[in-house]
Amino acid sequence: QHSESIHKRCICVYRALSGVSKPPRGLVQEKMTENAVFSQNMVLTIDTMNPNVKKVEYAVRGPIVQRAVQIEKELREGVKKPFTEVIKANIGDAHAMGQQPITFFRQVLALCSYPELLKDNMFPEDAKSRARRILQACGGSSLGAYSASQGIDCVRQDVARYIERRDGGVPCDPDNVYLTSGASDGIVTMLKLLVCGEGASKTGVMISIPQYPLYSAALAELGAVQVNYYLNEEKCWSMDLSELERSLAEARKHCNPKVLCIINPGNPTGQVQSRQCIEDVIRFAAKEHLFLMADEVYQDNVYAEGCQFHSFKKVLFELGPQYSNTVELVSFHSTSKCYMGECGFRGGYMEVINMDPEVKAQLIKLVSVRLCPAVPGQALMDMVVNSPQPGEPSYTTFMKERTAILSLLAEKAKLTEEILNTVPGITCNPVQGAMYSFPNISLPQKAIKEAKALGQAPDMFYCMKMLEETGICLVPGSGFGQKDGTYHFRMTILPPTDKLKLLLAKVKEFHQKFTRQYS
Amino acid sequence: QHSESIHKRCICVYRALSGVSKPPRGLVQEKMTENAVFSQNMVLTIDTMNPNVKKVEYAVRGPIVQRAVQIEKELREGVKKPFTEVIKANIGDAHAMGQQPITFFRQVLALCSYPELLKDNMFPEDAKSRARRILQACGGSSLGAYSASQGIDCVRQDVARYIERRDGGVPCDPDNVYLTSGASDGIVTMLKLLVCGEGASKTGVMISIPQYPLYSAALAELGAVQVNYYLNEEKCWSMDLSELERSLAEARKHCNPKVLCIINPGNPTGQVQSRQCIEDVIRFAAKEHLFLMADEVYQDNVYAEGCQFHSFKKVLFELGPQYSNTVELVSFHSTSKCYMGECGFRGGYMEVINMDPEVKAQLIKLVSVRLCPAVPGQALMDMVVNSPQPGEPSYTTFMKERTAILSLLAEKAKLTEEILNTVPGITCNPVQGAMYSFPNISLPQKAIKEAKALGQAPDMFYCMKMLEETGICLVPGSGFGQKDGTYHFRMTILPPTDKLKLLLAKVKEFHQKFTRQYS
Repeated sequence: QHSESIHKRCICVYRALSGVSKPPRGLVQEKMTENAVFSQNMVLTIDTMNPNVKKVEYAVRGPIVQRAVQIEKELREGVKKPFTEVIKANIGDAHAMGQQPITFFRQVLALCSYPELLKDNMFPEDAKSRARRILQACGGSSLGAYSASQGIDCVRQDVARYIERRDGGVPCDPDNVYLTSGASDGIVTMLKLLVCGEGASKTGVMISIPQYPLYSAALAELGAVQVNYYLNEEKCWSMDLSELERSLAEARKHCNPKVLCIINPGNPTGQVQSRQCIEDVIRFAAKEHLFLMADEVYQDNVYAEGCQFHSFKKVLFELGPQYSNTVELVSFHSTSKCYMGECGFRGGYMEVINMDPEVKAQLIKLVSVRLCPAVPGQALMDMVVNSPQPGEPSYTTFMKERTAILSLLAEKAKLTEEILNTVPGITCNPVQGAMYSFPNISLPQKAIKEAKALGQAPDMFYCMKMLEETGICLVPGSGFGQKDGTYHFRMTILPPTDKLKLLLAKVKEFHQKFTRQYS
Repeated sequence: QHSESIHKRCICVYRALSGVSKPPRGLVQEKMTENAVFSQNMVLTIDTMNPNVKKVEYAVRGPIVQRAVQIEKELREGVKKPFTEVIKANIGDAHAMGQQPITFFRQVLALCSYPELLKDNMFPEDAKSRARRILQACGGSSLGAYSASQGIDCVRQDVARYIERRDGGVPCDPDNVYLTSGASDGIVTMLKLLVCGEGASKTGVMISIPQYPLYSAALAELGAVQVNYYLNEEKCWSMDLSELERSLAEARKHCNPKVLCIINPGNPTGQVQSRQCIEDVIRFAAKEHLFLMADEVYQDNVYAEGCQFHSFKKVLFELGPQYSNTVELVSFHSTSKCYMGECGFRGGYMEVINMDPEVKAQLIKLVSVRLCPAVPGQALMDMVVNSPQPGEPSYTTFMKERTAILSLLAEKAKLTEEILNTVPGITCNPVQGAMYSFPNISLPQKAIKEAKALGQAPDMFYCMKMLEETGICLVPGSGFGQKDGTYHFRMTILPPTDKLKLLLAKVKEFHQKFTRQYS
């Protein structure tokens, strides 16, 4: 009876996550009759639940990943497979891929968690002084007290100083900084403020395609209109002004587009936008009366020569007061990416520029309902923006660790692009930044047909097959959006170099075999 | 210019948080003309923002608290006041009130944060083995990796075993356990699943009045219908079946009531519901086809003789299979209350009983969009449900600390009730559990009139005046809801005993003076 319920569950999870009604052959068999009987008297069923939630999709933890977890279990139980381990390249989770945390950060966290350690001699003085400063700013000197809903004051001050340094002195008011639970929390909060209206006056939100599916998921949940603009794959996933114009004009026919979202460096596409492009986007937003949301969580992840991270805030101020005094902009950052990779702490911040003071008050009220972001994540965010400085005892080790991580990522970005481009039928833009490659894959017509017969997106069919045959877990491009008739997958560059090489070799072999099989 | 902007901001925050347009006399002066000019070309203004967010109110961090923070600043700057410190009794934040964290919990957290410490001899073996177990369950053995969206497997297993022990062996399936960011996160997530429809078919959610304002805030944000049922103040804030029936019948005239929320032990009212009452509520929910949401975050906070915590789950199963197989129930718990008081970590879980498997899949998908609850909070939740056992090295200290905290809270609960009941015009029910008293206060007609002239709720007027004259920060009953014509305040019992006595003496003096002044 227990296995039956697991079985039912499995079908349902598959359905929910894939958005298709038919599980792939051999995965599960349908057996829903009992469930239908069970459901008929329930309050909360698939038919009575919030329909907006049903529309939500999130590929990064979708059916491929569910299946990967299942396969791992089967391997542990001794089921024979053509591979011995699952290699996950589906999510930007650096520590899970073996990246070591920054020693200094973890020392300060340990000190803050158990302040008895401040008496110990084993910790460097700069770690102790950071910990003391954070604890002094906490109620009862404890990470266990609620903080102000906007975040701990001194952390917001440190964030403001960090932004000023980053942007060459452009001023930052700590009052404009809000600490968040990762960047996702900030993005959803801002969209919550912005989305309203019904029918033709419903808020439209412009997002890049391909996009990070948090955006589409949040828009579905809020019942907003998703307005797609396509990145230019031929020009290394850059943003075209003409495409923004097309997309906006189209959207204005049926909704009220108010927001323009940009992810730079790009997820899932790995591009780094040029300064010129950012300037164009800002002018466009000003002219078209759009609220700008800049997802800049990969700001330290820039690898390609000639590329550089330009913050929207800095470019906005360089364009002069007619822009910097009027364009509404929010920028998001996080402890999860860059060289830290501390996803589990859910630390982050957002800086809001030119927000109506009355709306700001509403924002403060809104975040106060959820009390505060987790305080350890706030402490970690503080260390990121207030890292060891030259002359401090932890500086050398910190810089060594940071540089090693970023150099290794740069190497793996190059490696990934190079090897993928040796495969006939795979074309990969340079991984200029972030943590992902998003190569274009040619799929034979026969494979496309077979996928469609199964009710699957062709690249989902491809990725699922790759998982079953090689143990490699990627996310199909359809989970991020792509031009009709093109197919991709997203792959992180995070596995350790040896594993990454193995992975790329297996992808190459699989793609060739797949192409032969369906030609 | 900077002070001007702060000034404007101040008015706006006041407006947002109090829901009234007129700031109290002497607090701030209006000066909104510039703001209006500034706003006219903005995308996001008070007029264009999401109207549901505007409806949200959250008294626990409302205008009284904003003013308290301001007064603290004034005191630091040397402004003369009739008191030397602000005493905050507005929020259940134990550590901020000087309660010390449980040593064992913090040792494990330090070990998890900086695993180098596992090599050290300064930590007890049971702390080390707990830390090792948690780290092994984390990706890359790091708190910095994302966990499964539903929470770390082994933590959910420990939660399930804890629930089974608590409920005398009633089985708990870890698959029904979801780790959350505090209880608030779980409550909002469940409401998100449940709320839908428009007009007369819009979901109605029954909540107790007085209520914890997270509920009303979440319902406002989701656009659901808040259905009030009144707790019986005369019978120590118990739930009356007849009142539930009245409320439901009323609601059915204009919406579709689907959910019944209960907070037990009660917030803000401090009652502990009897087993009989819980049984009645379950039978009522079964008969009336309501989804039960039981907020049980104060489950260890029971002080009054003859009172005992009965979980809804346990009573449900004791009522037999016709109930335990059909009634849909979710129960919430948190690391923030009880003896732990670790609010800042945002740890929590919910257990869902009898959820439609298809909806469960939707729930898993929904939580996966936000990736995972902060991992340190998950680790802390694990320690709460897997605390030191007899024979383990940390057991004695753990029990000593736990017992001392709970005994002290019981003492302060008694003290608060006794002293408040010596004040003519204040009537206080026994604080049977949780962390709050919610006394009834008689306000003279003249005071009520004056408050209304200022556009304020009379108990807001009373609390604001108390804050200005005594430095004591309480939350007016109007922030939680109360029967028309009755007035209350919520006061935590958390300040250290000496301060609590001082606070109670000041409240007594103030109430007498206030009554004289307005009689």
